[in-house]
Amino acid sequence: MEKLFIIKIGGNIIDNENNLISFLKDFSSINEKKILVHGGGKIATQIGDKLGIQSKYLDGRRITDKETIDLVTMVYGGLINKKIVTRLQGLGCNAIGLTGADANLIPANKRPVKDIDYGFVGDIETGKLKAESIKLLLEDKMIPVFAPLTHDGHGQILNTNADTIASALAVSLSGEYEIRLIYCFEKKGVLENVKNENDVVPLINKTIYQRLTEEKALSDGIIPKVDNALDAIAKGVREVVIGHADDLLQNITDHIKGTLIQ
Amino acid sequence: MEKLFIIKIGGNIIDNENNLISFLKDFSSINEKKILVHGGGKIATQIGDKLGIQSKYLDGRRITDKETIDLVTMVYGGLINKKIVTRLQGLGCNAIGLTGADANLIPANKRPVKDIDYGFVGDIETGKLKAESIKLLLEDKMIPVFAPLTHDGHGQILNTNADTIASALAVSLSGEYEIRLIYCFEKKGVLENVKNENDVVPLINKTIYQRLTEEKALSDGIIPKVDNALDAIAKGVREVVIGHADDLLQNITDHIKGTLIQ
Repeated sequence: MEKLFIIKIGGNIIDNENNLISFLKDFSSINEKKILVHGGGKIATQIGDKLGIQSKYLDGRRITDKETIDLVTMVYGGLINKKIVTRLQGLGCNAIGLTGADANLIPANKRPVKDIDYGFVGDIETGKLKAESIKLLLEDKMIPVFAPLTHDGHGQILNTNADTIASALAVSLSGEYEIRLIYCFEKKGVLENVKNENDVVPLINKTIYQRLTEEKALSDGIIPKVDNALDAIAKGVREVVIGHADDLLQNITDHIKGTLIQ
Repeated sequence: MEKLFIIKIGGNIIDNENNLISFLKDFSSINEKKILVHGGGKIATQIGDKLGIQSKYLDGRRITDKETIDLVTMVYGGLINKKIVTRLQGLGCNAIGLTGADANLIPANKRPVKDIDYGFVGDIETGKLKAESIKLLLEDKMIPVFAPLTHDGHGQILNTNADTIASALAVSLSGEYEIRLIYCFEKKGVLENVKNENDVVPLINKTIYQRLTEEKALSDGIIPKVDNALDAIAKGVREVVIGHADDLLQNITDHIKGTLIQ
């Protein structure tokens, strides 16, 4: 099978002009098939503040009310997505900006209200992703750039975690391509000792993860990322890498920097 | 050749919730191949006011400075475009939201500064439109929805008139499809007597246009639209219709309402 790189970037790249320029240059120089998924960053909060839309959090998680979904649709789907696309085009990379609503690529359901009403947040219907349509774009030499938005199929756009979009895309395309899913992270990888930035775990698999968990070696913040990565592997994704954007290009060859999860 | 409808809507539909709902319902019920091009409407000005971005005009034409291009990228490319796409999806219409930057579909040049610096405004490079890529989307049953934005190929997104985008798309696809280009207008068509809303000229061709011009029968506002329409016809577009959105579906059959330009 042909290789496909799915690369996710977050606020530490999007919010910093120099980091973004450097990342896009590296991304555009990847010759293999590729998809970019970007998160939101701080700019939505900054623009929201100016518009008088308060960012609301409950137990540390953002609540997406009616005003906020309009805000993130503008900022994630318009400003950030089209800026990235236009710049990639300037670098000779045939990017096409998308949300999960476009061509119904990523159907989702509004998260059911239990203890907390998260508002217009989407949980992806993983079995319904339109892998065939995405493949068609890839085969036509287009490079999909996804904003962290999905939709409910009934006319409502939904705010959706970019990490989750990246892994859902990876799983749904794993029957068509040999996938390496790369999470660009603010650290050099999964750290065995959070106090030492260079103490990167080079490889995690089920056995190693069990040992690390028993030794309580991993920080609470990284555990969900590793869980998601192992879940993607179990569902057919060839490899997941968690690493720093500066090491992106090295991760495209088989010289993995950061943490390889298999 | 197969028929393709290219339909352009402006502020009188976008800015009015009921008009938009009604239009999108009509649009989604068209069975033939179709493309939607939308303008900007007043919402960019409203959001700009809240963000402290003043709308600037010179000789009645909007100046797109650095703040304004970010604003219209957010509002046209994000808020309006994705809202239309998501609603069309809810109506069973497989819309895909696009700007001219996406997949390099509509290359443009920043308008040269002569007497006036219009800022980040794009003049379309008509010969370079990616008709083949648009055809590929259409053949894959996707329905392109274009925001009024193009790009310069060097990393800069550009504000571009939606009427011009619609006619450029029509001309560039006229070798592949039999095109009817429909401009949804605030009046019932081209009026022979601006004081009588029902005095619609049913047909305009070169001969009729010459007569109307000699009689000074047309208002100044409509002349550029008719000029553009006749230009599109000269370049291969089969038919142009200028008419009211309420009569949209009748214009899809061969029962033309409004003004037919041939």
